[in-house]
Amino acid sequence: MAFEFKLTRRVEFAETDMAGIVHFSNFFRYMENTEHAFYRSLGASVIMKNLNPPLGFPRVHDECDYRRPIRFEETLEIHLVVREKRAKVLSYLFKFRKQNSDGESEQIAHGILTVVCVATQPDGTMTPTAIPDFLTRQIEVAPPELLT
Amino acid sequence: MAFEFKLTRRVEFAETDMAGIVHFSNFFRYMENTEHAFYRSLGASVIMKNLNPPLGFPRVHDECDYRRPIRFEETLEIHLVVREKRAKVLSYLFKFRKQNSDGESEQIAHGILTVVCVATQPDGTMTPTAIPDFLTRQIEVAPPELLT
Amino acid sequence: MAFEFKLTRRVEFAETDMAGIVHFSNFFRYMENTEHAFYRSLGASVIMKNLNPPLGFPRVHDECDYRRPIRFEETLEIHLVVREKRAKVLSYLFKFRKQNSDGESEQIAHGILTVVCVATQPDGTMTPTAIPDFLTRQIEVAPPELLT
Amino acid sequence: MAFEFKLTRRVEFAETDMAGIVHFSNFFRYMENTEHAFYRSLGASVIMKNLNPPLGFPRVHDECDYRRPIRFEETLEIHLVVREKRAKVLSYLFKFRKQNSDGESEQIAHGILTVVCVATQPDGTMTPTAIPDFLTRQIEVAPPELLT
Repeated sequence: MAFEFKLTRRVEFAETDMAGIVHFSNFFRYMENTEHAFYRSLGASVIMKNLNPPLGFPRVHDECDYRRPIRFEETLEIHLVVREKRAKVLSYLFKFRKQNSDGESEQIAHGILTVVCVATQPDGTMTPTAIPDFLTRQIEVAPPELLT
Repeated sequence: MAFEFKLTRRVEFAETDMAGIVHFSNFFRYMENTEHAFYRSLGASVIMKNLNPPLGFPRVHDECDYRRPIRFEETLEIHLVVREKRAKVLSYLFKFRKQNSDGESEQIAHGILTVVCVATQPDGTMTPTAIPDFLTRQIEVAPPELLT
Repeated sequence: MAFEFKLTRRVEFAETDMAGIVHFSNFFRYMENTEHAFYRSLGASVIMKNLNPPLGFPRVHDECDYRRPIRFEETLEIHLVVREKRAKVLSYLFKFRKQNSDGESEQIAHGILTVVCVATQPDGTMTPTAIPDFLTRQIEVAPPELLT
Repeated sequence: MAFEFKLTRRVEFAETDMAGIVHFSNFFRYMENTEHAFYRSLGASVIMKNLNPPLGFPRVHDECDYRRPIRFEETLEIHLVVREKRAKVLSYLFKFRKQNSDGESEQIAHGILTVVCVATQPDGTMTPTAIPDFLTRQIEVAPPELLT
């Protein structure tokens, strides 16, 4: 059973803006990338084309609180924690830490991402549906001490 | 005194993802673009380089709830509403509507963006500071009926 | 018969990078946006879903030469000129000009975008195919004086 | 002396578009990321803030030819090859390969990126200047067989 996942990445030039820091919209891409890497670590993919109808996980809510900026070539640690698991819904907490030159790291932001499992019809219509068993039996809500 | 602003834009191809809909991270760029157009409508810019020290408005919190997707070449209406005004902080509500072919529109998402005014030192340090008078005297919190 | 199209847009904050200028990759998005607006001006869309099989226009070549930078909130004029038209291929020249505060504008970059018409099979395979008549009969190569 | 560098990365969801493939503008971000990783491999950074005046490497030309698409979660190999070295200018060839499930890879695109070294004045003016010695003495043009 998995309830957390960690990803580390270096800030890319195109992710910065004229204020010299990572543009805030990229934190949502970081959350999504970590979510997808979490699924891969469970042998799955967020896009389940081989199912009929194909399943997907559109976002229904996300949010982020920013405490400190992060800059080009700095190293970002992204810590995904499962905070909620329902039949059709998964919700994640993300803690963003910046590695400092002294080997320590400090929390710079935290966010939430909530997704719903949908079946996609050929005409593009999306209907909420139960998350497949092979995922739900591998994912559990994290212990409370991780959720703060 | 201004408490709202509306922007209309057409969805661009590069804003879509393989699910055939606008990638969710773009809603945060839409919010920011509307915020900046709101400042321009007041004769200001989010980047106040001519002040010493220069002022900026980094984001401290943002969030978005997604109800329906929007697709390539569809028309998006973004309605900014001032929901909070403090000495150093402004917070906005955003209502996203999609124009339908029948001339009607439907709400597809809503978001919040909270920014703090900072003075930027030459070394890049950012210190929270009061929003300049010429902005605060033009901006007020919207009436309650707009804030739902 | 159409051989050119002009689009004007203001530089957005998220399009800048830490060098304080528009990130170069955005010039390719600007070219594409102008190409799509050109098709719309002809009553068409780059995505022709209602045809069977659906047609699309993937890019086969693009390039850009940068002469001067452009910055946040500056106004960009994008001038599309048809430079080549073959049965399955269209190629465009783009001239980018920046509007200066004196009302004049100066050329800051120029680019080329070459696209091929493809039919997309249900399995995702793309096969080059003739551009539909309703488009080709509206588009012609520009006179030489526009192509420099 | 270095004349090449390789980077491998997995395609991210936000890099795709509604055609189900990587949006072409991302190939320019991939080129830039590989260029920056190349500098880091030489103990340098594309942003040389500690010099006075600070140096940067704006792009003067780039281009890309696309042969095959690449999709979400596929693995991309980016091979940077130094194709030109002048006092103030560096130019790179990039070969993009996609890893197939059989362990083989196939070339899907190739590109060129040409950058100029500039000194940035406090007012933002950029003046072409010689590339610093510590970089030029580490970089050389690749042998001809790599440049095809």
